[in-house]
Amino acid sequence: MTKINDISMVTAFAPASIGNVGVGFDILGLALAGVGDRVTARLTNTAGVRVSDVYDLDGKNHPYLSKETDHNTASIAVKALWEAHGNSTGVELSIRKGIPLQSGMGSSAASAVAATVAANVLLPKPLAREQLLPFALEGEKYASGELHADNVAPSLMGGLVLCPIVLLPKMMQLRTPTDVSSVLVHPELQIDTARARRSLAKRYTMKKWLSQQGYLAGFITGCATDDYELIRSSFHDVIIEPQRSVAIECFDIVKEAAIKADAFGVSISGSGPSIFALCMSVNASNVAIAMEQACRTFGLECQSWISAMTAPGAYVEGD
Amino acid sequence: MTKINDISMVTAFAPASIGNVGVGFDILGLALAGVGDRVTARLTNTAGVRVSDVYDLDGKNHPYLSKETDHNTASIAVKALWEAHGNSTGVELSIRKGIPLQSGMGSSAASAVAATVAANVLLPKPLAREQLLPFALEGEKYASGELHADNVAPSLMGGLVLCPIVLLPKMMQLRTPTDVSSVLVHPELQIDTARARRSLAKRYTMKKWLSQQGYLAGFITGCATDDYELIRSSFHDVIIEPQRSVAIECFDIVKEAAIKADAFGVSISGSGPSIFALCMSVNASNVAIAMEQACRTFGLECQSWISAMTAPGAYVEGD
Repeated sequence: MTKINDISMVTAFAPASIGNVGVGFDILGLALAGVGDRVTARLTNTAGVRVSDVYDLDGKNHPYLSKETDHNTASIAVKALWEAHGNSTGVELSIRKGIPLQSGMGSSAASAVAATVAANVLLPKPLAREQLLPFALEGEKYASGELHADNVAPSLMGGLVLCPIVLLPKMMQLRTPTDVSSVLVHPELQIDTARARRSLAKRYTMKKWLSQQGYLAGFITGCATDDYELIRSSFHDVIIEPQRSVAIECFDIVKEAAIKADAFGVSISGSGPSIFALCMSVNASNVAIAMEQACRTFGLECQSWISAMTAPGAYVEGD
Repeated sequence: MTKINDISMVTAFAPASIGNVGVGFDILGLALAGVGDRVTARLTNTAGVRVSDVYDLDGKNHPYLSKETDHNTASIAVKALWEAHGNSTGVELSIRKGIPLQSGMGSSAASAVAATVAANVLLPKPLAREQLLPFALEGEKYASGELHADNVAPSLMGGLVLCPIVLLPKMMQLRTPTDVSSVLVHPELQIDTARARRSLAKRYTMKKWLSQQGYLAGFITGCATDDYELIRSSFHDVIIEPQRSVAIECFDIVKEAAIKADAFGVSISGSGPSIFALCMSVNASNVAIAMEQACRTFGLECQSWISAMTAPGAYVEGD
C-alpha cells in the first residue's frame, strides 16, 4: 500500500465499545453502532503531533480533556505511530467526542483508534488495519494505566474481538450470530475506571476460576455456532460483576428488567456504569425500553444504544 | 428410536481420551484413536446389574479392578441408566480393559462409556448418544471423587469436546483442524488421580487466571479457524502443568523433545503420567519418536499413540 500524496487531511470515525463483555474480563470486546468519536488528522510543516481542538458532543470546547500531546489518548497514539512510521512532517488532530467520558463505553479507546486510523492514511506507507493495534493501545495504556485491548480492538476491527493480553498484538475477530444485538444503557453516574480496577480482589478460588472459564468457553462456542441457548446459559460473570455491580446502584433492577424482557444475559460494560444486554435483534427495542424504564424508575436519567453484534469498526470518512 | 427386540447382547468400544487438554483444565477433553475399552452387555432374567468378568490387556482376569457392581465404573454407570430407563430384566457386563490404569488416559471413563453405550442398545427405548452423558458420569464420579466430564465426554462423542461443569449435562463438540493430531506417550509411571487433584493449590492470582483464560479462548479459536500459529501460541497451561509436572520426572525432557520436533505444544494428559503433544498430522511420527526416545533416554519404558484430533467416539460393534 502506498500513500496517495495529495491527501493532507483525513477524518476517521471510531465506535464506542463494550469492554469485558461479561465473561471475558480484559479479553473480549464488542463494537457498538451509531456512537463514537471523530478525529480529523492534518499534515503540517511543523514536526511533531499536536491537538488543535477537542470538542464535546455539542461542538463546544471540551471542559475536561487535555490538548497537551502527552495527556490525550489520541495524540499519544498518533505520536507512537508517527515515531515508528512517519516522516518529518507534523500532524495536527481535531477531536470531536461523541462518547460520554467514564461511561464504560470505551471513550478513551475510540479517540485513540479514530486518530490512529486517520493518521495512518497520511503515513508515507500506510499500515494494514490490524497493525495499528499497538499504537492505539499506547493511548489506552495512558488512560487506564493498564495494557488491555478489549476496547481498542473492537473499536478498530468491529464486531466481537478476542484480545488476550498474553497473545497481543494478535487479536481475533470472533464469529457471532447475525441476528443478536447488544443493548447498552448508560445511566447518568460516573465511575473511575482505574479505581474500579484497583478495588478488584487479587486472588480467586479454583472453583470460581473454573466456573468463569467454563462460561467464557461456552459463550465463545455459542456465538460461533448460533447456539442461542448456549449463549444464554453461558453468559454469567461470576467473578467481576459481583464486585463491580455494588457501585452501580441501579444494576440489579436494570438487569432484572432486561432478563424479564427475554435478554440472553446482562452485565457491566467495562467498569461501568453502563449496563448492557445481549438479545435477539428483533427483541432489542423491547429490551432497551425495559432497561431504560427500570433506570428511570430508579431515578436515574439514561441514554441507550442498540447495536448488532456485527457492528462495524473504525472507518475513514469518504472512503 | 425403538428397541430392536431380538437383541440381547451388545458389545461397544469406547476410546481412551486426553483429559484437561492443557489449557482446558476440567473442561476440555480429546478422544484418542486405537486404544480403548470394550464392554459386552447381556440381558439376563435376574433383575439388577452385574459384572461377570474384567479382563486385562492379555485377556486374563484383571488383577486390580473389582467385579462388585458398586465398585466398578462400568456397572455403576449402567445401574444408573437402568434405574432411570430400564425394565425388570437384568444386565450382565463383561469388560475387556485396553487402557492402562492410572495412566491419565481416561481408563475409568472409557469403561463407563463403553458399558453405557452397549447397555443403551438393550433399553426398551434407547436414548440419543448425548443423553448418555449423565449416566456415564456417575461411574466417573465414583472413580475420581469429583464431577468432571473431560474424559467421559470425548470418549462418548469423539473429537475435542468442551464440557464445563457449570454447563453440564450440556457439552459441545468443538470444530478442530482435520490435519492436526495428538501424540500421547505413556511412560511407565503411576500417578494417583485423586491425590494429584488434592495437591493442587486452591487459589490463583488474577494475573494467572487472566493468562490461562486468554490461552484457553485462543486455543479454542485457533482450532475453530485452522489457525495453527494461534494454536501454537495459545497452548500454554500456566496453572496446572507447573504444579503437576514435578511428579512426572521425564516431563521436561519429553516436552523439550516434542517442541524441538516442531510440536505446537505439549502438556500432561489428565493428571499424568501420560504426556501429549499436538502437531501437524504429517509430522506426528517424528514427534512420537522424539518423545519416546526422550523417555527411554531418561530410563523409562513407554508406549505411544497417534490420533487425529477428529478421532471417533464410542461405537457399537457390528453397527
